[in-house]
Amino acid sequence: MCQLLGLNCNSPIHVGFSFSGFAQRGGRTDEHRDGWGIAFFEGGHDKGVRHFVDTQPACESPMAKFVRSYPIKSRNVISHIRKATRGPVALENCHPFVRELWGRYWVFAHNGTLEDFSPRLHASFQPVGGTDSEWAFCWLMQELAKSHAGMPQLAELTITLRELSAQIAGHGTFNFLLSNGLALWAHASTHLHYLERRHPFAHAQLKDADLVIDFAAHNHPADKVAVVVTAPLTTNEDWRAFSPLSMKVFVDGQAV
Amino acid sequence: MCQLLGLNCNSPIHVGFSFSGFAQRGGRTDEHRDGWGIAFFEGGHDKGVRHFVDTQPACESPMAKFVRSYPIKSRNVISHIRKATRGPVALENCHPFVRELWGRYWVFAHNGTLEDFSPRLHASFQPVGGTDSEWAFCWLMQELAKSHAGMPQLAELTITLRELSAQIAGHGTFNFLLSNGLALWAHASTHLHYLERRHPFAHAQLKDADLVIDFAAHNHPADKVAVVVTAPLTTNEDWRAFSPLSMKVFVDGQAV
Repeated sequence: MCQLLGLNCNSPIHVGFSFSGFAQRGGRTDEHRDGWGIAFFEGGHDKGVRHFVDTQPACESPMAKFVRSYPIKSRNVISHIRKATRGPVALENCHPFVRELWGRYWVFAHNGTLEDFSPRLHASFQPVGGTDSEWAFCWLMQELAKSHAGMPQLAELTITLRELSAQIAGHGTFNFLLSNGLALWAHASTHLHYLERRHPFAHAQLKDADLVIDFAAHNHPADKVAVVVTAPLTTNEDWRAFSPLSMKVFVDGQAV
Repeated sequence: MCQLLGLNCNSPIHVGFSFSGFAQRGGRTDEHRDGWGIAFFEGGHDKGVRHFVDTQPACESPMAKFVRSYPIKSRNVISHIRKATRGPVALENCHPFVRELWGRYWVFAHNGTLEDFSPRLHASFQPVGGTDSEWAFCWLMQELAKSHAGMPQLAELTITLRELSAQIAGHGTFNFLLSNGLALWAHASTHLHYLERRHPFAHAQLKDADLVIDFAAHNHPADKVAVVVTAPLTTNEDWRAFSPLSMKVFVDGQAV
């Protein structure tokens, strides 16, 4: 299995604090040593993507250290640490995966294992690596492309994604994060938690590292930040568990 | 205009030396300050891609410094430094661009400006940013997908690419580098040079930085490395200029 981290905000933020705690689970406070990855939307209209993947454990990777220290600011971030179940440890099997659809990049990361899920991929999205996760992502992209001629409104897109996710979730554990830079969709089969940080901001204590942050000192009162993660990142905040087989969509730092 | 750098090798090499010189042209020894990018193929069967893009000048970017110092080894690398002519300075306009076709990632970077080239993109490759370059790449991918049901043999693929490139080159300057991890295609409208390094290896002196390398100490006698670049990187090696409107394909460190 693996672990997921997603952030969705109403203005670009540094992800250093959350990623610092999360990366410790990539081999130090947890067993996910088989690679990691992170993608940040950035640039005009949140259309550009910075994408980092690595086969080293996140807790030791020089690239993870660089990402923690480099002040990348983004409104939509997806990260993943991997414990290989399907597909060997290789760069092409590291999440998140990226594809383009309707002139936007889409970023996807998955936690769980799917059984007997290999629908025919007859269109223009084919997996590069050997994971069930990338296969599921390609199928999602294919079916989205078939369902809508161009990018639909958020509500309509969410209905389609909910229907498609339910079909995949029948084949196993399908906790996933998906973003196109405008919204963050999160689907839970089993374990997924979320938190909405907003004014008044308080101190937060990481669970996986000896690190405390005073969000009041780092955030503007108008800031809103939604964090979605496999297991809560901090010990003193109000994390809520997703109901099994549910999907939420986050826009501008809050659940819609 | 912009500058291009491509490497194709028969075994994975560090690109630190070539990239160190090239990155100086991103604002220090030349005027290409509007972003840069680099993509490395890696992983099983050279299928994975590490992709770095940045809007800062390559000579100052902390990410470029990280890439220079981090020992990423690859057999196919494409890098680009940008001087914006079409499309604003933004992450989504930084080359190289990446798309998936036939279950492989394809990486593309372009130098030049195209006039009146906006053929209809009716299939599944749409530009995310606003450059003529990404439009040309999407059209290349679309036409490749239409020409072959799956990945053809190298010779056949090269014939198709030659025909398609000639059509685009009629619209302006179309110097480009393209790789799918198996080969490096290079097309010259105007300026492009290449070099094939092989045994016996010698010292090389960078043109853009006070740096000398003894390739004999860093390479195995069996290593072969082809370097393609807008303007020669070193002062004492046998760089050859591409003929105008010509394409070459490099496999395992040499022109085929």
